[in-house]
Amino acid sequence: MIETTTLVDQNCHGVLRTELGLGTFEAQLGRTAGPPAAGTTFFDTQTGFAVRRWCPPLLGLEPHTSPAGYLARRRELGVLEAGRRLLRGTGVTTYLVDTGLPGDLTGPEEIAAAGAAEAREIVRLELLAQQVADTSGTVDSLLANLAHAVHTAAESAVAFVSVAALRHGAAPAGDPPGPGEVRTAAGRWLARRRVGGRLTDPVLVRHLLWTAVATGLPLQLHAGGGEGRRADCCDGGPARIAGFAAATAGLGTDLVLLHGLPYHRHAARLAAAHPHVYVDLGPALAHTGARAADVLAEVLELAPFGKLLYSSGARGLPELHVVGARVFRQSLARVLGGWVADGSWALADAQRVAEMIASGNARRVYGLDDT
Amino acid sequence: MIETTTLVDQNCHGVLRTELGLGTFEAQLGRTAGPPAAGTTFFDTQTGFAVRRWCPPLLGLEPHTSPAGYLARRRELGVLEAGRRLLRGTGVTTYLVDTGLPGDLTGPEEIAAAGAAEAREIVRLELLAQQVADTSGTVDSLLANLAHAVHTAAESAVAFVSVAALRHGAAPAGDPPGPGEVRTAAGRWLARRRVGGRLTDPVLVRHLLWTAVATGLPLQLHAGGGEGRRADCCDGGPARIAGFAAATAGLGTDLVLLHGLPYHRHAARLAAAHPHVYVDLGPALAHTGARAADVLAEVLELAPFGKLLYSSGARGLPELHVVGARVFRQSLARVLGGWVADGSWALADAQRVAEMIASGNARRVYGLDDT
Amino acid sequence: MIETTTLVDQNCHGVLRTELGLGTFEAQLGRTAGPPAAGTTFFDTQTGFAVRRWCPPLLGLEPHTSPAGYLARRRELGVLEAGRRLLRGTGVTTYLVDTGLPGDLTGPEEIAAAGAAEAREIVRLELLAQQVADTSGTVDSLLANLAHAVHTAAESAVAFVSVAALRHGAAPAGDPPGPGEVRTAAGRWLARRRVGGRLTDPVLVRHLLWTAVATGLPLQLHAGGGEGRRADCCDGGPARIAGFAAATAGLGTDLVLLHGLPYHRHAARLAAAHPHVYVDLGPALAHTGARAADVLAEVLELAPFGKLLYSSGARGLPELHVVGARVFRQSLARVLGGWVADGSWALADAQRVAEMIASGNARRVYGLDDT
Repeated sequence: MIETTTLVDQNCHGVLRTELGLGTFEAQLGRTAGPPAAGTTFFDTQTGFAVRRWCPPLLGLEPHTSPAGYLARRRELGVLEAGRRLLRGTGVTTYLVDTGLPGDLTGPEEIAAAGAAEAREIVRLELLAQQVADTSGTVDSLLANLAHAVHTAAESAVAFVSVAALRHGAAPAGDPPGPGEVRTAAGRWLARRRVGGRLTDPVLVRHLLWTAVATGLPLQLHAGGGEGRRADCCDGGPARIAGFAAATAGLGTDLVLLHGLPYHRHAARLAAAHPHVYVDLGPALAHTGARAADVLAEVLELAPFGKLLYSSGARGLPELHVVGARVFRQSLARVLGGWVADGSWALADAQRVAEMIASGNARRVYGLDDT
Repeated sequence: MIETTTLVDQNCHGVLRTELGLGTFEAQLGRTAGPPAAGTTFFDTQTGFAVRRWCPPLLGLEPHTSPAGYLARRRELGVLEAGRRLLRGTGVTTYLVDTGLPGDLTGPEEIAAAGAAEAREIVRLELLAQQVADTSGTVDSLLANLAHAVHTAAESAVAFVSVAALRHGAAPAGDPPGPGEVRTAAGRWLARRRVGGRLTDPVLVRHLLWTAVATGLPLQLHAGGGEGRRADCCDGGPARIAGFAAATAGLGTDLVLLHGLPYHRHAARLAAAHPHVYVDLGPALAHTGARAADVLAEVLELAPFGKLLYSSGARGLPELHVVGARVFRQSLARVLGGWVADGSWALADAQRVAEMIASGNARRVYGLDDT
Repeated sequence: MIETTTLVDQNCHGVLRTELGLGTFEAQLGRTAGPPAAGTTFFDTQTGFAVRRWCPPLLGLEPHTSPAGYLARRRELGVLEAGRRLLRGTGVTTYLVDTGLPGDLTGPEEIAAAGAAEAREIVRLELLAQQVADTSGTVDSLLANLAHAVHTAAESAVAFVSVAALRHGAAPAGDPPGPGEVRTAAGRWLARRRVGGRLTDPVLVRHLLWTAVATGLPLQLHAGGGEGRRADCCDGGPARIAGFAAATAGLGTDLVLLHGLPYHRHAARLAAAHPHVYVDLGPALAHTGARAADVLAEVLELAPFGKLLYSSGARGLPELHVVGARVFRQSLARVLGGWVADGSWALADAQRVAEMIASGNARRVYGLDDT
């Protein structure tokens, strides 16, 4: 039996602080902006079934308890106590928390306390830029403040993350934009945006990415397919990412691809082709429940074993932290255990690779043992 | 053991009325326009092997009987009796029949009678447009007749289907074309086409799609990868479909993606992202035989269980109806049964999901219980 | 148990003639231009694990011996004797050798002698063009010499191979370039290149491909995904190949797609759609080790069984020849044996298909029994 002693969740988010009814709980399971189709429910998904498989036992119920029964028990315990039990049931020892999501979510300290674990912050580049823009009146101050903010964040954060990188324009490919181009784009953005307005300008996104690359901190990139909600944007994720990966080769900054299905094999191939490219396992496993072992096995085809990182990608519900971690551990044990059983791998190698993927690779890439 | 009591085939075609020799039978198994490569036969495919696996027992022979032996027995019984035995061996209770294919194929009533089942019609938009054009002399009459024909068809048909949607131009993405644009395209088509000429103009295809969307009837879309014959056209299927899915969100008309390999996972992702998008399982399973369970499992990763619909996609041979249905039932039982066996799913949930995919979802989407 | 009596490796390369230290051996396992990422090793990949699984027993060691222990034994035996033992452990009876790689690699005769097998040559088009350019002073002589060289090569070679086809421009799609276009491109290339300079001009690459097609000899095409090293180039491989496949249909020249992950299913679909398109299994299996059976099963979904060809794609290390062959035979036995065990296939059919993929298809396509 392949076991892992520690687990680093290299990309997750906080959980909601309020009690949830059946409808609001269900909405967190979906990956669309709106409600489910008439006659269907988000509970009838791999994510919904996995929540019912793994979470009820942590609250003293049978696996596969009905949604209503589970939520009744959850309310009985209260959101705080249920959250504590769930997070402590993940086995996660270190959470790297992307704090850039909207909504009333717990921060790294609260997650650490609730989960009896450590937590570090990942800074979301687009949010940082928006905050800087809210307090900058001129192009000069915007650009200076942006550079300052990114470098200051790099001193305490463990990584940067960008979601806009692959959504807006063919931006990431190629080299950093020139100073004049950046100034023009900054002026245009300042002139048109309202306070809190989102950053979507391709030139500024590219400038922001290259500013982050210059800090040397690992850069996590949401890529096409990471979340269903974005399935309607251009499907060119892997091709675009490939261009940015080529452009940043040899600079000393690691890229971590937060790819999900159906591009997990493309991501694995990029990790094999570029020393500085790493692959996240989060969305590909956490959303696929009973199929997660098969998806994990597909990523393990081409990706070097030292280039894979676990995450849950969880947001909003502590249940999603549980599902991510449990599904990952079970999948890893099944896949690697199967290869040991059929003679393809030696047991000692399998155990070593399991520890690498569960925590060792993340500790090395993010320097978690350095401080 | 997961069982399904009824089965709706949500996209199929009629069968040939004439006796078939070995060569003409084999040609129906291929998915190329021409003969197989020298030294090869279409019997040596998953489809060919699946026909030999499932059909001989329905005609009183051993599984895996040789093609020649099987066809001898088929001729002995006669095309009518063989067709009755085969169709009644599918377990299909309702056939939704796309009547827009060329060739001397049986219609919905004949399929229903031969198969002791119900049958409803799916109207192929391109054929409807061609028929209207054959009898319309001016742009005004063409456009008026087209609108009338689509709305009349919507009163009796159970769905529309389009194959041109994804083949001709980047059409589907974006909004309906403007009136002037449509008139120009209609004039051009009328001026150049011969009687029976096919509709390939991107503007008219788009106009036709949006006219169909306006009726509220479900719209089935052949997408890239559905059939090998079209593999030489642009591979942008999923990206194009994604654009059309985004443009039609919230209008109240459901889209059913007739995607096949290798885009089944993309289709599943779109079904997760959009409430009005559904995924067909037909070509992905019927063409892959011994691999169908694995392909089904891949679709079940991201697609909500209420968004999946069974079809055979069969055309020409009753044997293809049999293969579609048998391979689907066996795959469903294996995949869901496996998840029950390993504790991932509860048995009651698996049974419920099996009924949804086999018939419940189709009954709801096509309103089969409404009349 | 499914067995194959002979094995044709339809695309491989020679092995290095010199003793290798741990670092140089490891470099041959990677698929990047440079060293592995800090803290990682190319031994921690499916390829590395597969070498340790299959090769030590051929040199008298236990499976899964450590890299250092294995290389010590390899040096003890000497590069010649180790190479002989390894190549004779592959079970390959005929090697088709692409001789166009740089480096001090053994040629077809040496591989045949070391492996106690037959060997034939595959000519790399780009290298041929570069050699011709090195000795041609004018556009006229370059084009005449090129035509002559291709047709001369066709008399002795068993196939052509091109790697540039899918890398440089949208070239392969569409028809042959016109004479004026070719002359201009040839002049530009002659004027700018240095001796030994690589051929990357899209027009000349296209001209070269069509010149090769005219000989009627099978043409092997490296496609997107074949090797990780090229993952940074445009990902449009399958779409481009589809265009070239459509353009060359019916000309009597077979195309063999050297596709690898993640495009193996696209390649299988093209082989189903076009009588003249064949699919290579090499990189998809040899690089995925413990996962190779699953990848093979995916290719077997859509590809007609008469259209699949085994290769190792091995280069540099005899160990990679071993891994390719062993992993292929084991995968074939597992996948086809599994389908026999579950009743999907008859044993006699499985045995017949196994022989086709292992050698029969290659013998037919390359005319290996003709001489």
